[in-house]
Amino acid sequence: MKKKEITIISHSRNEMIDITAQVRRAVSDMSLLNGSITLYVPHTTAAVTINEHADPSVQQDIILALNRISPVLKEFRHLEGNSDSHLKSSLIGCSQEVIIENGNLFLGTWQGIFFCEFDGPRTRHLYIFCH
Amino acid sequence: MKKKEITIISHSRNEMIDITAQVRRAVSDMSLLNGSITLYVPHTTAAVTINEHADPSVQQDIILALNRISPVLKEFRHLEGNSDSHLKSSLIGCSQEVIIENGNLFLGTWQGIFFCEFDGPRTRHLYIFCH
Amino acid sequence: MKKKEITIISHSRNEMIDITAQVRRAVSDMSLLNGSITLYVPHTTAAVTINEHADPSVQQDIILALNRISPVLKEFRHLEGNSDSHLKSSLIGCSQEVIIENGNLFLGTWQGIFFCEFDGPRTRHLYIFCH
Repeated sequence: MKKKEITIISHSRNEMIDITAQVRRAVSDMSLLNGSITLYVPHTTAAVTINEHADPSVQQDIILALNRISPVLKEFRHLEGNSDSHLKSSLIGCSQEVIIENGNLFLGTWQGIFFCEFDGPRTRHLYIFCH
Repeated sequence: MKKKEITIISHSRNEMIDITAQVRRAVSDMSLLNGSITLYVPHTTAAVTINEHADPSVQQDIILALNRISPVLKEFRHLEGNSDSHLKSSLIGCSQEVIIENGNLFLGTWQGIFFCEFDGPRTRHLYIFCH
Repeated sequence: MKKKEITIISHSRNEMIDITAQVRRAVSDMSLLNGSITLYVPHTTAAVTINEHADPSVQQDIILALNRISPVLKEFRHLEGNSDSHLKSSLIGCSQEVIIENGNLFLGTWQGIFFCEFDGPRTRHLYIFCH
């Protein structure tokens, strides 16, 4: 399988970073016309998802609500203090398949692809595998 | 990749709609015997999941509990008032792979496939891609 | 598609069970060098996820926080009393793709694969399909 690596630099503890353009470029570089790709996050406190990328306030609202769903609990035993981040990673998921049609990402009108940082700021990686 | 489109009409703001029979029919139409399909929701306030389809009260309980997990928060800034719906979409996910074996959907005894509406009622679409 | 079945015995109602070694062995048995596998859970009160497997306290913290997110609600109507388990299954997800590179699971440094039991103790199954 062909593989491409994307580097992502996050600036907050929790952040949704629009990577649609980077994924589109990678697919073009891999000359994939029809098929599918798998986006894979090799981290345990980050994730990847597809959601609205027209209005940035959606991303802020999602982060706000996710922090409410998965707060830092005083009962947590993991000493790094980021168990909330690990849970967010499994709730959103570390991989996402994207269909490629005629060389384009098959996405809905309002959909974009987001790298989700849950324990930043950090330098992160995301892999694109071409089926 | 072969592609089929399913149209779904929802009747509530939040609703789980059993689409197992429609997916089964689409797989039969595509003459797929062995392999896998990807179910893809091109919307940002809907999702697709696999869960119990024997007792409809499970679906009602899941919707009830999801509304408690992701309520409408007064701090939300997105003006359309549906940030709770966007979050639900990313929590459940907009795609699902299903294995096909001998022309049948490979599902557990109690499993069915559900389109999840989180900002209805609306007319929605779901795509089935055949690998 | 080649298929392998793994049997998992859980010992608690909620439990994350590290199955990385079992998946690795199955991939080796299937002689898959490059490609991907789909891990599929045929149950509606269990799931599969990828998360940290270095420190077992992460798994305990995730279970603790998930129980807080999806408690048993008195409004639930499903008579089996496990609607919280069904919701957890859809939040985490019943399938996971894993990339195989040079015969190895393509996982990040801290990542392991976990079967998630949400209505145990039980004997469970997970299927590995080779693409």
